[in-house]
Formats: sequence, structure tokens, C-alpha cells
Amino acid sequence: MSSTYGTLFKISTFGESHGPAIGVVIDGCPAGLTFDTDFIQHDLDRRKPGQSRITTQRREADEFEVLSGVFDGKTQGTPIALLIRNTDQRSKDYGHIAEQFRPSHADYTYQTKYGSRDYRGGGRSSARETAARVAAGAVAKLLLAQQGVQVQAYVSQVGTMKLEKAYADLNLALAEENPVRCPDPEMAERMFQYIDETRKQGDSIGGIVDCVVTGVPVGWGEPVFDKLHAELGKAMLSINAVKGFEYGSGFAGAGLYGSQHNDEFYTDEQGRVRTKTNQSGGIQGGISNGEDIYFRTAFKPVATIMQDQDSVDIHGQPVTVSGKGRHDPCVVPRAVPIVEAMAALVLVDMYLRNKVSQIDRQEAGIL
Amino acid sequence: MSSTYGTLFKISTFGESHGPAIGVVIDGCPAGLTFDTDFIQHDLDRRKPGQSRITTQRREADEFEVLSGVFDGKTQGTPIALLIRNTDQRSKDYGHIAEQFRPSHADYTYQTKYGSRDYRGGGRSSARETAARVAAGAVAKLLLAQQGVQVQAYVSQVGTMKLEKAYADLNLALAEENPVRCPDPEMAERMFQYIDETRKQGDSIGGIVDCVVTGVPVGWGEPVFDKLHAELGKAMLSINAVKGFEYGSGFAGAGLYGSQHNDEFYTDEQGRVRTKTNQSGGIQGGISNGEDIYFRTAFKPVATIMQDQDSVDIHGQPVTVSGKGRHDPCVVPRAVPIVEAMAALVLVDMYLRNKVSQIDRQEAGIL
Amino acid sequence: MSSTYGTLFKISTFGESHGPAIGVVIDGCPAGLTFDTDFIQHDLDRRKPGQSRITTQRREADEFEVLSGVFDGKTQGTPIALLIRNTDQRSKDYGHIAEQFRPSHADYTYQTKYGSRDYRGGGRSSARETAARVAAGAVAKLLLAQQGVQVQAYVSQVGTMKLEKAYADLNLALAEENPVRCPDPEMAERMFQYIDETRKQGDSIGGIVDCVVTGVPVGWGEPVFDKLHAELGKAMLSINAVKGFEYGSGFAGAGLYGSQHNDEFYTDEQGRVRTKTNQSGGIQGGISNGEDIYFRTAFKPVATIMQDQDSVDIHGQPVTVSGKGRHDPCVVPRAVPIVEAMAALVLVDMYLRNKVSQIDRQEAGIL
Amino acid sequence: MSSTYGTLFKISTFGESHGPAIGVVIDGCPAGLTFDTDFIQHDLDRRKPGQSRITTQRREADEFEVLSGVFDGKTQGTPIALLIRNTDQRSKDYGHIAEQFRPSHADYTYQTKYGSRDYRGGGRSSARETAARVAAGAVAKLLLAQQGVQVQAYVSQVGTMKLEKAYADLNLALAEENPVRCPDPEMAERMFQYIDETRKQGDSIGGIVDCVVTGVPVGWGEPVFDKLHAELGKAMLSINAVKGFEYGSGFAGAGLYGSQHNDEFYTDEQGRVRTKTNQSGGIQGGISNGEDIYFRTAFKPVATIMQDQDSVDIHGQPVTVSGKGRHDPCVVPRAVPIVEAMAALVLVDMYLRNKVSQIDRQEAGIL
Repeated sequence: MSSTYGTLFKISTFGESHGPAIGVVIDGCPAGLTFDTDFIQHDLDRRKPGQSRITTQRREADEFEVLSGVFDGKTQGTPIALLIRNTDQRSKDYGHIAEQFRPSHADYTYQTKYGSRDYRGGGRSSARETAARVAAGAVAKLLLAQQGVQVQAYVSQVGTMKLEKAYADLNLALAEENPVRCPDPEMAERMFQYIDETRKQGDSIGGIVDCVVTGVPVGWGEPVFDKLHAELGKAMLSINAVKGFEYGSGFAGAGLYGSQHNDEFYTDEQGRVRTKTNQSGGIQGGISNGEDIYFRTAFKPVATIMQDQDSVDIHGQPVTVSGKGRHDPCVVPRAVPIVEAMAALVLVDMYLRNKVSQIDRQEAGIL
Repeated sequence: MSSTYGTLFKISTFGESHGPAIGVVIDGCPAGLTFDTDFIQHDLDRRKPGQSRITTQRREADEFEVLSGVFDGKTQGTPIALLIRNTDQRSKDYGHIAEQFRPSHADYTYQTKYGSRDYRGGGRSSARETAARVAAGAVAKLLLAQQGVQVQAYVSQVGTMKLEKAYADLNLALAEENPVRCPDPEMAERMFQYIDETRKQGDSIGGIVDCVVTGVPVGWGEPVFDKLHAELGKAMLSINAVKGFEYGSGFAGAGLYGSQHNDEFYTDEQGRVRTKTNQSGGIQGGISNGEDIYFRTAFKPVATIMQDQDSVDIHGQPVTVSGKGRHDPCVVPRAVPIVEAMAALVLVDMYLRNKVSQIDRQEAGIL
Repeated sequence: MSSTYGTLFKISTFGESHGPAIGVVIDGCPAGLTFDTDFIQHDLDRRKPGQSRITTQRREADEFEVLSGVFDGKTQGTPIALLIRNTDQRSKDYGHIAEQFRPSHADYTYQTKYGSRDYRGGGRSSARETAARVAAGAVAKLLLAQQGVQVQAYVSQVGTMKLEKAYADLNLALAEENPVRCPDPEMAERMFQYIDETRKQGDSIGGIVDCVVTGVPVGWGEPVFDKLHAELGKAMLSINAVKGFEYGSGFAGAGLYGSQHNDEFYTDEQGRVRTKTNQSGGIQGGISNGEDIYFRTAFKPVATIMQDQDSVDIHGQPVTVSGKGRHDPCVVPRAVPIVEAMAALVLVDMYLRNKVSQIDRQEAGIL
Repeated sequence: MSSTYGTLFKISTFGESHGPAIGVVIDGCPAGLTFDTDFIQHDLDRRKPGQSRITTQRREADEFEVLSGVFDGKTQGTPIALLIRNTDQRSKDYGHIAEQFRPSHADYTYQTKYGSRDYRGGGRSSARETAARVAAGAVAKLLLAQQGVQVQAYVSQVGTMKLEKAYADLNLALAEENPVRCPDPEMAERMFQYIDETRKQGDSIGGIVDCVVTGVPVGWGEPVFDKLHAELGKAMLSINAVKGFEYGSGFAGAGLYGSQHNDEFYTDEQGRVRTKTNQSGGIQGGISNGEDIYFRTAFKPVATIMQDQDSVDIHGQPVTVSGKGRHDPCVVPRAVPIVEAMAALVLVDMYLRNKVSQIDRQEAGIL
């Protein structure tokens, strides 16, 4: 088990879906940051269940308590512990799966790896854990905002329904105007119907979340193994239901010639080195190059469906698993703030790590 | 800079493309492993330059020296240091780029992040560093082999030319029979011509490497952040030129319904719990489920091309970068052993970490 | 700030002395351990304030809540979060020091490092944080007990009053029979009077805690940097007010000849390799050798005294700091369970790390 | 096995006493540092064997090769690999101990933990490994020097012969003027005779090394677990033959009253907050307070003596171990640069970590 992420801005999450609480401890947040609780709560609200009829009807207020690390409204450099009580845990919904392995869930692997499992709502493997990430990610966003960095994700695909426009041709602010979180209003409406139809059929559907990060200066990211995109990839792949990650040209880039793919440099009117194109997705050699950072994350359909499925129980005997409980027919709308949170956590860690890349020339008397 | 990977089987690589040497220190290899130098050299030979006319003509023997950690042919539990001298460093090939930023290389980002850079052959950002990974990965493979685990990668796509067969329908052993490392001989021949044409045009082309890992028992992988596929993703994305990673159903999975995507469980004739399909790619909840692990890694076209390109120099002035040096027109054939090495490093770390997942029931007197 | 300790059994503590709560997240506790809440509470009770008139009169029940990681009375391999609410926070006692730096406290260094500080009761620098360590350490003790390992600390010195007997000549069980936690009843009584006199004078006094660990098999400890005694030393020195650490012969060993100091080996009647003496303190080359592990930790006098002291305020102006609040005149009685907790945390981490020292010979088909 | 130390300035050492080479990889050295090879060689020379008749007569030039990380005389932010070939390995001296456990050496514990060992000269457990630390520590010193920080150690005790003067009453520069490295010339001469007598008797003797660090600003050190003195303690205890560590008042502080021990603050003529006394050893709450950092490290007598000793062999049978090989009768003179190196490594890590303690107020537009 490793529930810890980060080198300098380090988070540890805890909590099961139907236990008393979930939460996160942030160790390494610099002191002096104004701790904007409304901002954090707003991001939690964007992730919380029950936002519309295409999200799970579980009701969780997802209000958080600050247990430590903040004094007089500022971070103190000490660990920040944030606690979210679980309130609407209908554990009885899960009695029937205590001895069953739900297809494409983590029941079987947890049971085998650990010898037991908290089967209620998936326990630790539930995406409920991501609320803790969103809270921590919101703190990271506050730090990034001070550096002029903004992280914005949106839904670009639901099932086979794709938004064919590039992010630069969209008004990303519109993503938050609809329950699907697609910045194209017409497409958002079609996606909503698609998801709702899927829900009515007792089925689920996958999708893709795109993410754009603006304002990152040149120099964030740590080669060789902790390349910026490698950490972003790990962070995204650590989110429940994620099956793939690509940045910049991504998989499509494999089909191009170098002469098509290379991003030529030029100097803009402000004297800043820029690239004419951005196949690199804002990252070269694992280090940000000052262009927009752009990446995409693919989510599989939610494993819980309201249909009978073949499976086995913990004794290996065949059983029929029938869908119960309250679940999302499509995770991508609620995944948007989770993608943003994980991106923010990666970026803030890289921001801090970059501070020690060069010697202190001023202090050293060199400049 | 982070040139260290792994939690228990920890590697640190070092070395620049045109410095005296590259190498790796492995800290955490268990004692008692028979150290098969021929096996390690064989993997280095699979990666080394000059294998055919579609790879770079740089000549490096890539022979390694064991500096520590091995005694009487066995690992001792102490750090294993492996050294590979650079021999064919035509540094003069690079004098012309000392002050230029090559498009889609790491020249600009390294220069800005660190204030200087070893420009010869890309210095630390060169894929030459991956030879050290291959050496370490070969040691990991030796440990995995004892557990019955095999890692096999192959080329499934070059440019837009795709091998449409599933891995299960291929004889993967054939991949090593041709210079492209594609297990379909006919497709391999076509890919070879494609790459060679590209080379003749002074251009480069991308591609995709698929990887299959067999024999992994249930239980490897550490949720929440260090999910097996998240670590595999990070490891692949840390390889030079990689733009995307997907496992199991991958990006295509986003387009499916849950009822299509879920892998139903059954018990096979040996009493083993299996899944009927493998959209999960052998991983559920971040933990191996006993099925084959399957993932795909997309590589962009090599940034160095034998054509003139617009760029800027370190003073921001416009320059024309012309292609020189010896480079691969397509990296995927040589990337195959690198993908395998990184996969082996991830898996061996997870294998070791899994050893402490449950209490020692026997010692504890429980069983 | 680093509030995280451990490689495999990793703890993160949080909380300020006068904030809402303190607590700890344990990431990496193996699954299947019976979670004995009474045992944990008992250790917290041994540390809690108000035990006798020679400890601080602050009243804290120090009852803990299990937020996660335990199901059906067993650990699940998932993070265990333990929460202790602060109840008796007389923050008004501290208003007077909001702008003063108390001598030999961390007020000045925290203020300078972080730009601000939670001055109430020392905030994060308060020894109240150690309650979280004791809770985590008790979980570690439960794991160790399964391996037959016992950790027992006791007070061997208060001020200049020293217990001259070796631990082997004492009945350590008697340590818990008196409020000083000295296993020699007569000495305990004298120490009690000494501390009480010191308290009446408004002063404080230092002391030494000895610790003995029995039952550790050969092989725990990780050379080169994470030697068992190096980790024990770091762990002890991380406890508030600690000034020194020694193991085995310690500082006195510096005065001996090799011919006096060396521990000769012999084979005992059970065929076990033993040493005739134990100057090594049970550790050779950083690895346990099967003998009792023995070390000593020196604590300075508590910095808070009920006397006026010269100091400066946050503006650098001279002030007189007068003693207020409720404080221990001597920390060593309450430090005993803290020393044990930190020792247990080190040992359990080494126990787990040792599991991967050698290849799996059985699985590998070698044995 | 953990041969890695450091959070941001991370070192990995490798190599056995009688293998081909030893060395170190430094991952995380900031770019732009002038790499002074003479300075590094000078520190290696201070540690190397054969300096006088009171050190081992093994002859090692201990010249190092820079394999990576330095270009045009400057560090590049990439891993710095330093290699030292072993030249004078008289392995045949050790054939007789292949099957014997030397008393108070690591032979028995390594053999048991790892199932085998490189017995030649102690293999990995040999203090020869510390040459790699000294090389890395010298790089750390170069960085510290830019910040005005100096690390100076010296011998304060040999056997029972103690230098009773405080460091402030000594001219520490004199320590390097004599082979014992004691800054009091008269005492140095007496210590030299003492050690030489011990050598003639075929015996060994312990000693104590004091260390003073000047110029450290307020704020270095990371509470809670990575307190500056806790990391210094771990670093010292990780050195071969170390039995104890204390800082500031140390063990003697346990015997004092708070009213004697507290360091009162005042503001000096330059407006700097200072303490009247320095029982704190320059560290309060785990963070440097701007005063001199002062600590002491106790070394046991070298385990190898030129006398017959009882022991057992690897089959548990009684044997007589007779002293052979070339060994130091007293390690402390050569330990001086090792203590300094480890201190420098701790301090440079804390220097870098401190850079992220507070938000970037200037960049954030707050100041």
C-alpha cells in the first residue's frame, strides 16, 4: 500500500468509502499561504456526488475540517490535515457483495493481496478516496495561482462521442456551465443525453478528460525518471478507472514524420523563446518549455452496472452479481476536478523541486 | 534532477552521451542471485547502436564492467555498480549546436533550467542513458525469471503502419528474428522498408511498442498512488521520445459500455480464478490479477532529422539548424529492450514490496 | 517540515498543541494484524499528562479514534488514521508569548524559518505531537510482539542522580510500578523527591532513559546509511529535548582498548552463535546480532521554568519571559513510552525491510 | 541494504574494500557550481591510509575520476559520478577469515542477513566505503562554502586522554598540523605516543571527534522527524565504529537544571538575535538558530587487533582468530574528514530543503 504522493509537497490520503471518514495530510506546504477554505470547498463541490441525474445519487456534503497546519488564516509550514466525515454510508447496500467478486472491480485483487477487504462500497479502492486528493489539490492550486499557473480540465469525449475541436478553439470557461463539463454547449447537451440513456439502460460508459495548464514557466520537471510528463502520467493513471494517458501529440504523434512533428523555435515580440507548434505539449526532455501543457486521460466505463454478470465468490464458486447501490453511469464529469487536482499536485511539487536546480548565484556572489 | 527510480529495488543512473562513461548503481537487489553477465550483455546488445542500417551508425561496444556487489558469481545484497565506457564519441559533430537549440530536443529546457548544458549529443538528455537502464533491467529480469515472470515487448506500429493482430495471435518469439522487432515477419519486412525510405529522405518516423508480461501472480502493485499501471506508465513515459501509454483496453476502452468492458470472473479447471476477457490488461485496482499484463507505449519521431529547420540560438537570435551526427530514423526497434527493462524494474520493485503486504502468519503462529 | 518517518512502515503525524486535534496516518502496516485498541490506549495513558504531581497538570484524556484501515478488528493493509482531539487547550495561557521568544524553545527558529508560528503551547514544536508517535508505536509493538520482540525503556538518571546498575541486574517490570518509571524502587523514590523539589523551586531537570529490546533475530538493520543504530539514533534525537544517544558501550567505549571492547563469539548449548559480552549493544555493522539491543538517550531539562528569564521579542527588543502554563519539571518519566514507541517504529521498519534481503530461495527452486 | 542518503542532495555509494573500485553518485547537486577537483582530492588525502605510522599501512592513492555531471568545470545539475579504483588490495591477507567470524566485526551479521559475504577486508562493511562519502562530502563543502558555512572537526579524545578545553578556546586550524588532528599541539603529541604505544602492543583504542560548523544561518533543519541534530546524529552513527552522538550540552545536559541550561536571547550590536550561551549547540527545535553548531561523536576501538581472540567459524565451531592485515590502531585521526563529510552532506541537504519553507513572497507579489 502506498497512499503517499510527492517529493516536497507530500500528501498522504486515508479512509475507506464506508468508514468513519476520509482525509489527507499535506506535509511540505510552504508557510505563508493564505488558506482559502471557500476555494477548497468549491473544488470538493465540483467532485461531490449528487450534482445531477447523471451522477451517483449518494449524498455527501463533503465538508472538510482543518485539523492542523493553519493559523491566523495562513499555512504554517507544518502538516495540514484535512478531514471529511462520511455521512451517507448505506453499508447495507453492500452486504450482498461481502463474498462476491464484482467484475472489473478491485475486490478479487485486494482480497488476495491483503487476505481480507473492507467490501463496503469497495472500501479503500473506492473513488471516494479522490475527495481527499481534490482537497489537497485545491491547496496546490492556491500555491500555483500565486505563480500565475492555472489548471483547467474538461470532458472531450463520452463513449464514442468526440469533441473534435482543439482546446485553443474552445472557451474552456464554459466547461463549468453544464453538468457534463464539456466546454462546447451543444456537444455537452448531446453528451448529457448519451450518458442519461446509458444510465436508463443500467449500463455505464467511458470517456476522455483533456487538461490544459497555462502559465508554467520554463524549467519545471526533473529528468531522468521524474520527467514532468512521467509524473503527470503516473498521477493520472493513479486515478480510479484510468486506462491511458498521452500528452502533446500523444498516440497520434507515433504516426508522424519528424519533419511534421518537430516544434520549431522562434523569438516572439517580447523576446521570449517560443515554439511555432506545440506537438511537445509544453514539455521537452521532461521539462516545461513555457508553452501550454496539454494532456489527455482515458477513463473506462464504470465497472458497476445495473445488470446481472457472471462471477465467482471468495470460495471460487460461480455466482451472479447483480447491480445495486448508487453509481455514476459515466465518471468523466466528476473526474474533471480530480484530474485538475492531481495535475496541480504534480506541478506544485515540480515548482518546489525546481527551486534547487541551480546554485544560489546571488547569495554566492556570482551575480 | 532525479536519476533515481524504485522503492526497494532502487537504481541510480549517471552519465552523459559524450562524457567518459555511463552507468548505474542498483541498491536493494536481494542477495543470492546468480549474476548472469552474458544475459545482461545480450540485452545491452539488443539496444546498442549499429545493429542494422535502420539504426544509428554510432559504434559503441556497450560492454559493461561490474564494479561492486557481486562476489563468487552471486549478488551480495550490496549495491551493484555497472559501468559502460563511452568509446565512439565524435564530439566534434556537435560543436555546431553548442549555441543552438535543436527543435523538439531538450537543449532549450536544459539550458534554461540549469543555466548551462553539456551540448555534446544532448548530454544527459540523450537516449544513451537508457543503456544503463537496460543493464539494470536485465538484473531485474533475472530476479523475475526465478518467479516465472517473462517480459516481452515488440514493435506493433511504425508511422501509420499498424500490426492489426492481437498479441495472443502472434508468435512473439519471432520479434527478435528481424531488425524491426515486429513478430509478424511480413509486416516486419514492410516496416523495415518504410523506415529505410524515411532514412533516405533524411526524415524520422514514430511508432508504438507493445509489451506483454506473463507469469505475474495475483497481488503485485501498491494502491493508491503506486498502482501497478501507474508505475508502468511513469516508467514508460520516462523513456526518451515517449508520448503516450495505455494498458488493457486503453484509449479504446473509453468508447465502450461497461457491459462490453467488464471482465467476468470464472474458475478454471485448475481451480484458479480467471477472467473471461482481459480488458483490464491484467491489473485491477492497481494490483495484478494473474492474467497477462499488457500495455502499449507510443514514441514520437526522433527529433534529429537530416533537414534544415528554423530555430533560435542561446541569445534568442534566429538560426538554421542543419541535421548532422548519427541518428536513428525510428527508435522503436531499439526501444523494445528499453521498454522491457523499465517494465522489469517496475515489476521487481512491486514483487519485493508485495512481500510485506500481509503479516507473517506462519511466524506469527496463526497458520 | 518533514513529519514523515519510515521506509515501509511509514507514519505521518500532524497537529499542533492547541489546535483542534493531533493524529497520525500509518501507511504500510501489513494486513491481518489484530488491532488491539486497549493496548494502544494503554500506551497513550502511559504518556498522557496529569499522571502524578511530578508531571504537567494539563488534563488530556488522549482517547483516540480509528478513522480508517481497520475492519472487523483487523488491519487491512490500507492506511490507518488515528485521531486524538485536543480537549484542555488553555490557549489564553499563551497570549503573553505571542510576541516573545522563550529561551531554549523553538519559538525563534520557527518564527524565522516559517515567517510565523502558532505560538499557543509551542504549536507544532510541542511535545504534544509525541502522543501521535506513541499511538503509531503501539501498533508497531503489536507487530513486533508477533515476532517475539519486546521493547522496554526505563529511567536510569534524573539530573545527577544515576542508577548505577546494569539493566541485566534489574527487574525491568518494576519500572511501571512507580511514577518515575525507574525499575529500582528505592532509587525511584529518591528520584521522585528530587523532581518534586525541582518543581517546587520552579525549575526543571534533565535525565536519561535506557532502552532494552529483546527477541530481535539476527539480520535487522540496513547498512550502509540506515544502520540499525543510526536509525535508532535519529529516532531518539527526533524526540523533543533529546541531546544525546549512545548504544552498547557508547561514549565509555571510546576509552577502551580493542582487547577489552571486542565481543568474542561462542556457540551456546542450543547451537546458537552468541557473544560473551555485549559491548556491541546487539548491533554489529548496523545489523542486529541476536543479542539484546541496548541504548541510552539523554534529555535536557524542560525549557519552560517558573522563573523570569531575559529574552527578546519578535522585534528584537529585550523582554522578560516569565514562566506560566502547565509543564513537566522533568520529562523522562513520560518520555519512557515515547522512547519505546520510536524504537518500535524503527524496528518494525527494519523487520519489514529485512524480508527482501535475500532471494526467495524456496520459490526460486534453490532449496 | 540502503546505500543512499539525502532528500535533495542525494548520494549513493557503492563498492567493496577489495573489489575493483568504490565510488559515489550524487543526484541533486545544483548546476553552476565550480567543481574544484583539487579541493576534493585534498579531502580524500586527509582520509587516505598510510599518512603516518599510526594509520594503516595500506597504500591507496585514492585518486578519483569524474565520470559524469561536470562540463566546462561546472556542475550541470546532472548526476555526478566519482570513481576511485582500488589498487592495493592484498586479498590474500584475508583468505584465513573466509570462514571465520572476527569478533566485533560485521562478518557474522552480514553472513546471516545475506547468506554470504565478500570476506576480503570486510567487503562492503569496510570503512573503505567512507572514501566515497568524503568525495561527496567535499562537493557538499564547496556548496556550503558559497553560503559562508565552514565545517571543522578535530580529535578531542583518544582512549581516556581528553582535551579538556572548549572549542572556542582552541585554534582549530592547528588540528591539521599534526597526524592526530588534535588542535592542541602538546596534547596531540601525547595522543600520538598513546596511539603508537597501543599499536606496538598489537591493540587498538577508541576516541572522540568534535565538530564545529560556523556560518549556518537561522532556519536549516526540518522538524519533526528530520530535525537537524537528528539527521546529524544518524549521519555520524552511520560511520563505521561510531557508538554515540551528542550535541550542545549533550549527555552532561541531563544533569543540569533548566535555569542553568537555558540559552537566554539578546540582540547584539548588529541587531542580530543571539544567545548568551550555547547549550543548544546551535539548534533549537531541530532548526539552526544562527549560533555555532557543535556536536561530538564517539568511536570504539578498531575491532581488528594483532592478538589471538576466541570466535566461531561459519559452521559454529570454535576457532582462534589471529590478527593479520594492515589496520589503524585508532580511527579518530582519519575519521576527522569523514565526520566533516557527513556533516556537510546533512547541512547541504538542509540548506536546499530550507529553500522551500516559505512561499515565494516576491514572486507572489506579497513583498
